[in-house]
Amino acid sequence: MFSRILIANRGEIAVRIIRAAQELGIETVAVYSEADKDSKHVRMADQAICIGPPAPNESYLNISRIIAAAEVTGAQAIHPGYGFLAENAHFADVCRECNIEFIGPSAEAMRLLGDKVECKKLAIKQRVPTSPGSKGAVESEDKAVTIANEIGYPVMIKAAAGGGGRGMRLAHDDNSLRQGMRAAIAEAENAFGNGTVYLEKFIDRARHVEVQIIGDKHGNVVHLYERDCSMQRRKQKLIEEAPCPVLDKTERDKICKAAARLCKAAGYYSAGTVEFLMDSNKQFYLMEVNTRVQVEHPVSEAITGVDIVKTQIRIAAGEELGFEQKDIKPNGHAIELRINAEDARNNFIPCAGLVDFFDPPGGIGIRLDTHVITGYRIPPNYDSMIAKLIGHAKTRDEVIILLRRALREFEIAPIKTTIPLHEDLLTDEGFLTSNVDINYVERLLEIE
Amino acid sequence: MFSRILIANRGEIAVRIIRAAQELGIETVAVYSEADKDSKHVRMADQAICIGPPAPNESYLNISRIIAAAEVTGAQAIHPGYGFLAENAHFADVCRECNIEFIGPSAEAMRLLGDKVECKKLAIKQRVPTSPGSKGAVESEDKAVTIANEIGYPVMIKAAAGGGGRGMRLAHDDNSLRQGMRAAIAEAENAFGNGTVYLEKFIDRARHVEVQIIGDKHGNVVHLYERDCSMQRRKQKLIEEAPCPVLDKTERDKICKAAARLCKAAGYYSAGTVEFLMDSNKQFYLMEVNTRVQVEHPVSEAITGVDIVKTQIRIAAGEELGFEQKDIKPNGHAIELRINAEDARNNFIPCAGLVDFFDPPGGIGIRLDTHVITGYRIPPNYDSMIAKLIGHAKTRDEVIILLRRALREFEIAPIKTTIPLHEDLLTDEGFLTSNVDINYVERLLEIE
Repeated sequence: MFSRILIANRGEIAVRIIRAAQELGIETVAVYSEADKDSKHVRMADQAICIGPPAPNESYLNISRIIAAAEVTGAQAIHPGYGFLAENAHFADVCRECNIEFIGPSAEAMRLLGDKVECKKLAIKQRVPTSPGSKGAVESEDKAVTIANEIGYPVMIKAAAGGGGRGMRLAHDDNSLRQGMRAAIAEAENAFGNGTVYLEKFIDRARHVEVQIIGDKHGNVVHLYERDCSMQRRKQKLIEEAPCPVLDKTERDKICKAAARLCKAAGYYSAGTVEFLMDSNKQFYLMEVNTRVQVEHPVSEAITGVDIVKTQIRIAAGEELGFEQKDIKPNGHAIELRINAEDARNNFIPCAGLVDFFDPPGGIGIRLDTHVITGYRIPPNYDSMIAKLIGHAKTRDEVIILLRRALREFEIAPIKTTIPLHEDLLTDEGFLTSNVDINYVERLLEIE
Repeated sequence: MFSRILIANRGEIAVRIIRAAQELGIETVAVYSEADKDSKHVRMADQAICIGPPAPNESYLNISRIIAAAEVTGAQAIHPGYGFLAENAHFADVCRECNIEFIGPSAEAMRLLGDKVECKKLAIKQRVPTSPGSKGAVESEDKAVTIANEIGYPVMIKAAAGGGGRGMRLAHDDNSLRQGMRAAIAEAENAFGNGTVYLEKFIDRARHVEVQIIGDKHGNVVHLYERDCSMQRRKQKLIEEAPCPVLDKTERDKICKAAARLCKAAGYYSAGTVEFLMDSNKQFYLMEVNTRVQVEHPVSEAITGVDIVKTQIRIAAGEELGFEQKDIKPNGHAIELRINAEDARNNFIPCAGLVDFFDPPGGIGIRLDTHVITGYRIPPNYDSMIAKLIGHAKTRDEVIILLRRALREFEIAPIKTTIPLHEDLLTDEGFLTSNVDINYVERLLEIE
């Protein structure tokens, strides 16, 4: 096992990783930008190193400074968290060249699964359902029009290197397809340095269902069941839950096994997530694979009892998983609410600044992953998520009641947060019956 | 079900009860002394009523003011928490006379089990092991000497109405017995208004093992397994855990069934605890019955999945338990650490005052029951317990690792707390192997 690891991240996920490391008896090195010098992850770690100014490119995305910090502190491994460098295969390569273990999958698996075109090819080979669409990259607008007319409109244009909704366009006819191609290619080149795009049939009223995977370097791959993340706004998840409320055992087994099969074929180890869209007939289609720990991993931890971050660290050190698929028995229901420092009543504008009153909820079944305390100043430089409120109980109805109570108790002032939005969503009939799709929240917000 | 209840308590247990009520959809009325006007339970409740000055006799023990608060707010029931009026049968009578439901056992059961002499008689009838001792009250010093010579020294003199170590004296010979009788009677008269005492054989190197009971008004009584509370200082529990680490299944069944039998015979409903002393041969002897929810109830909640406070409220409203003994399957191990505002390095003197920095621990398996936040001023008028840190994991070793991590993360300043003491205890060899008894911590502290 490692004796010292570096955490190349900030906020609640840095806190989460330090907790896991401490429970494994591993010393921790925090890195931080100048904006984060008073942050909780800095206080918690055994050592903390400032790696630059607030701008992410100058600090949390600065590979050479992070590697230097690992080398001066003698950290044997780096956990990248999510976001920033978590899915950067080049960073994983650099770690390997410097004899530092990257706590995540191999750079090869990241490249293979991170390239949507390659990933789709592998999925087809492994009998994992994919949306009808182009077989790989689409080189020209004319080619795109031909394919779209074959599979039928509406179609989605997607960037091969994409994620988070960037480089995506919906097209309803030849005209909007040609326009969308130009826009998506430009956006993808700009965002990912790679303008490759492909086409997929658009699935109307789709749910977002994803499967948590965990594998080791000895060829063991296990799924930790699925999550439903259909409650989104602008492709950003707001509420995630496990298990998916609309699946029966047969349907659950089918999607979970497909995800595990795909990852096993990719030689995958560490934590990963296979994301699917699911239509109203519960047919599921591969969307993408996220080769990192995800924001919403706690709901899977709650229902399976597996500490995903500790397992990632153990696996990176070469240990075996230590459990098999049959040992994972889901227990109860868990829901996570992302608490963002945003004014939901005012177009979700981010609200950075001083938190001068912070009274977190607690009690049975409540887990709050956060780096915020009274007196913390939320910097304007990063993601607006400041806390994840996770509830776990025997049934979905009980979790919803539990979370309503916890939201009511949760006080943050004077910063505006998404707490009032979640209070509304937790009493919304569509959510209560889980009669939702990935555009449900946006339709709801338009009505208001 | 009630639509509104009053909580006749303060601090973490008032917060705990309000959470339970809110999850049941019940409005809450807080009462508070002038010292507690900014406290969390006041903020959380739907209504809050000041019932007097800081001194407990003027506020939290003032029956007429509490009843008046319930009447003006239309509260249909009162939860007394623990301490204050929780085991006051007269208060339960007054509630009944005022048509307010007392959320606890009947006044009759409280009187029967609260009187140690009567309780012991019932235990003998129900084949619940009791220590050899006087058959009921001892009227004179001469009688005491005769009995002590029959059962053999050392003997313990105990107040019939006692609790918390008051009215108790250990005697090693006739001389110390006569002196102890006089002291114990005086102390009991002073503390409880009742100087009745009895004798019991003193059990050397005893463990404290107690069984959580829950019953309804329809005659159902179920146990929620046992807790080990041997880690004490001056009869005050410091660390409690479930299950007891030294019992096997047969031994566990025996003590738990004995406790349930005793409560069933007493017509007991609501939550209660049957406390035993256990000698080095794992023979157990009834100590006393606590007719209330206890400070350490969360460890039983963790391993059984039963919300004890919600169940108390449902039972008081006349509902059935809704589960049977066979439905209760213990899961994993839980440990609670009492965090007191005391200077463990300076004779445990209480440290009231302003908490100007409070960073609570979190993460998987951690529950923190507290009313403290940054900016809270701990009043000097009440019990020094300011938080309960509860860990739950698959095994005892895992919980200990988890709690060490959580303690390390837990920051409270500038108030002195028992956190450093717990850090020491969680690495102590005797505690790690659970080779302890109720005087273990004191012996440890004397060595230092």
